Amino acid sequence: MNADKIPDIIIGRLPSYLRALQRLSENGAKTTSSQELGERVGISAAQIRKDISQFGEFGKQGTGYSIPFLIDKLREILKVNRMWDIVIVGAGDMGHALSRYQGFTSRGFQVAMIFDNDPSKIGQKVGDCTIEDAAKMGDRIRTARIKMAMLTVPAASAQEVADQLVQAGVKAILNYAPTSINVPENVHVQHIDPSTHLQRMTYYLD
Amino acid sequence: MNADKIPDIIIGRLPSYLRALQRLSENGAKTTSSQELGERVGISAAQIRKDISQFGEFGKQGTGYSIPFLIDKLREILKVNRMWDIVIVGAGDMGHALSRYQGFTSRGFQVAMIFDNDPSKIGQKVGDCTIEDAAKMGDRIRTARIKMAMLTVPAASAQEVADQLVQAGVKAILNYAPTSINVPENVHVQHIDPSTHLQRMTYYLD
Repeated sequence: MNADKIPDIIIGRLPSYLRALQRLSENGAKTTSSQELGERVGISAAQIRKDISQFGEFGKQGTGYSIPFLIDKLREILKVNRMWDIVIVGAGDMGHALSRYQGFTSRGFQVAMIFDNDPSKIGQKVGDCTIEDAAKMGDRIRTARIKMAMLTVPAASAQEVADQLVQAGVKAILNYAPTSINVPENVHVQHIDPSTHLQRMTYYLD
Repeated sequence: MNADKIPDIIIGRLPSYLRALQRLSENGAKTTSSQELGERVGISAAQIRKDISQFGEFGKQGTGYSIPFLIDKLREILKVNRMWDIVIVGAGDMGHALSRYQGFTSRGFQVAMIFDNDPSKIGQKVGDCTIEDAAKMGDRIRTARIKMAMLTVPAASAQEVADQLVQAGVKAILNYAPTSINVPENVHVQHIDPSTHLQRMTYYLD
């Protein structure tokens, strides 16, 4: 299958597969089954077999999938076999937390810049970056050709900042603000929404 | 269909439907279609019709689903037609960010307590709470019968704290630490993993 034509719905599932495979690998496993993988990601074994079969042969009948091979293939498909620079906009609590987050580099990401419009924050060091003036954000992003951003500003500023990011050439935004943002069709948005995750568990509680 | 028997895989999709419906409602919409809902949550219209039909009749052929009715029903099924108390463990950047997060109360959640083991933090006010001594966490949670927790401690402490939470009666953990945690079968875990969200977008970038 041509990698340009993988349906969005399958692409959306691959990062979960990759994470589960990397965890299995860290625990020393060399092979896995669609059953095991399915239990770890909450997707049926049949769906996993179907998704994975689209990319070729990854294991022999009865011996399971080769974990290192599948990890390599998924990293290649998802283009995380390289390092992506990301900017953080909003140096509040969440911006600070993300700038120090230890789970990016092993997954293909590094925080390259962090911006805020609060003069008392500009110039402060956070993680490996120095907080820069949000007024210079567009130029800085354009010059460095950065395509990804994490948006950690208050809800009221989210749309305005998103517009600026898009104008600067950002094509993928991870939105932490508790509001939706509108972007052109060629820009991708993911929303980190703790309430949605919490609501996936309340059903099971008394 | 008996609400006790909804498959996990469907329950996992309902919070996204609910969020999309609440956004549509905020924008003034009264009805929606499986097509519109599907585009907003990234799930096929056929799957959405199938999922929703399990709970009864929610709209007439041709007129679409009634948004307020569907919101009420989903909130009832997911048990977020009440308010759930949550504790935060770890008063670092992420703990602070979550304690001040504005997106909980409208979705059925309120932060009731926050704990840390750093003496310099204990007693400080954050959001509507005062940071409490983690040594008293078990007793405090047990007495208040709190069932949900957000884990924002470093990766190295995550398992130990998760064990303490489980012992105190917590049944649902939202894990922000960049590591997996093991819990008994009757305890539910969701993992907030920004790298997984970022990897859902890199495929589309050049």
